[in-house]
Amino acid sequence: MTVLDRFYEGDVRALSKVISYVENRYENFQELLGRVYRRAGHSLRIGLTGPPGAGKSTLVNCLARAFLFEQKKVGVIAVDPTSPFTGGALLGDRVRMNGFPADGSFYFRSMATRGALGGLAATTDNVTVVYDSFGFDITLIETVGVGQIELDIINTCDVVVVVLVPESGDSVQTMKAGLMEIADIFCVNKADRDGSDRIVMELRQALDTRKKIENSWRIPVIPTVGIRDENTGKLVTKIENFVSFQKESGKFERHRKEQLEKKIKNILREQVTGMILEKLGEFADFEQIINDIYERKGDPYTVARELFAKVTP
Amino acid sequence: MTVLDRFYEGDVRALSKVISYVENRYENFQELLGRVYRRAGHSLRIGLTGPPGAGKSTLVNCLARAFLFEQKKVGVIAVDPTSPFTGGALLGDRVRMNGFPADGSFYFRSMATRGALGGLAATTDNVTVVYDSFGFDITLIETVGVGQIELDIINTCDVVVVVLVPESGDSVQTMKAGLMEIADIFCVNKADRDGSDRIVMELRQALDTRKKIENSWRIPVIPTVGIRDENTGKLVTKIENFVSFQKESGKFERHRKEQLEKKIKNILREQVTGMILEKLGEFADFEQIINDIYERKGDPYTVARELFAKVTP
Repeated sequence: MTVLDRFYEGDVRALSKVISYVENRYENFQELLGRVYRRAGHSLRIGLTGPPGAGKSTLVNCLARAFLFEQKKVGVIAVDPTSPFTGGALLGDRVRMNGFPADGSFYFRSMATRGALGGLAATTDNVTVVYDSFGFDITLIETVGVGQIELDIINTCDVVVVVLVPESGDSVQTMKAGLMEIADIFCVNKADRDGSDRIVMELRQALDTRKKIENSWRIPVIPTVGIRDENTGKLVTKIENFVSFQKESGKFERHRKEQLEKKIKNILREQVTGMILEKLGEFADFEQIINDIYERKGDPYTVARELFAKVTP
Repeated sequence: MTVLDRFYEGDVRALSKVISYVENRYENFQELLGRVYRRAGHSLRIGLTGPPGAGKSTLVNCLARAFLFEQKKVGVIAVDPTSPFTGGALLGDRVRMNGFPADGSFYFRSMATRGALGGLAATTDNVTVVYDSFGFDITLIETVGVGQIELDIINTCDVVVVVLVPESGDSVQTMKAGLMEIADIFCVNKADRDGSDRIVMELRQALDTRKKIENSWRIPVIPTVGIRDENTGKLVTKIENFVSFQKESGKFERHRKEQLEKKIKNILREQVTGMILEKLGEFADFEQIINDIYERKGDPYTVARELFAKVTP
């Protein structure tokens, strides 16, 4: 029996192998993805993002438990903001699987930035396809920060929950951080702390003053205390409400098709990059070229144009 | 007299025009960059990064004043973390030019994320080339956050100052945020606040426990109070020390050459991607392709491979 057969039968070890294969971009990994892709399409992708220390991991665990209780299979991807230089998660994330069922209805994987430009968003997206075809009803994606890559990752989700804490600062700061535009739902976690009411109120006011578009989703602000699992049920309900709203309005399908278009273009871009680097390797003296430019005997723009002419017949 | 002539004569309005031309990627902007590139190479690029609210803008102003006092010409680029959806800086950054000389020895420009993947890092790098050839001795680049794009931007600098505040949390959090590996110099700003001594000490300890490599730069931790311009002179000295160290050890040149290699590859990637997207437009029914995949009659990986074969002869 092949790994893929065992994967389709729900073998968790086969799942791990398929993910590693995709993560490490082994030979023909895209063919493998193409095959599993056709069995996918049922999983709901929920993204949680926000500043470090907002308690996203705890909330993800709460949401996972809530969905498991609804008899749903849940897969988690935690995208670790570790720098591209260390190449791995610093904190022992395996700890986080403690207390969850080991019968294949729950799976956790953390992923760290690995240097390759654009690689992390693409890899995360590919792993969601694997999760989906494995049969997870819910995929929870957790990211930190508001950089472009984090936005790319969160844009692959059907629902985006932005998690803040009372310490997150006033709403101008929030808007500056670019979180306002990506949130479908706001969650103010650690809501038992001072200043919680204030930030909840400020966020609601800021959301109220935005231009109202008819029949648009009204972004809710949910206070929670993840560590005591308080009000997280409300968060689940709001997520489900949002999904219903999106499906009824046709936005769910439209959004997924837009994502698909981006995905195809990204895969193409990646393939082209691979081809270029390969062809560049064939050139005799790239080092000499660099030295010349460094001494201002040339410039990178002209050199790139010349190389472009050479690599594209 | 052409804009470029006036640019070379030091006309600030011509500088603004050239930057806009490069930022907006008008026709043949890379040819223009190629021309100005050959006059560049003298400017030192100093990057400041750190969490929102760390007081980076204030520190950048302090550094700018210090360098101006040394009779150096200073250009500032503030990369705004505004989301790709709003497309502009929220806070009136023009205010920041107040009190600075208007004789061409100082220039400030803020840039916001503009949607294009990888675009912001490339554009920032291109603008540093323009600054450099205009004659700025010092280019100060300010970014927020620790995403991949921010790292790409900061990697184009000769010196990286990571700015933290007493509230930044313990050093594990700092390491998780990936700041530890990119810093040449740490600055703990707002050092008059509670907990400042503790974070300075923790950082120093964390740096001390790292593996020591012979003749390597010892990363300093400098407490400052930017708003009162306290101890910022020390920061300037450490920046200058670091540059001397890099130049003497040959690392300065090596680093710049590595950056050059990346730059050429990035320009190439951009050009090829542009060509592909153009060719994709020639295909009859991209929408139909998307619909088929959405209904799982195909998959994006196979489709991308087929398209790749078509666009690359």
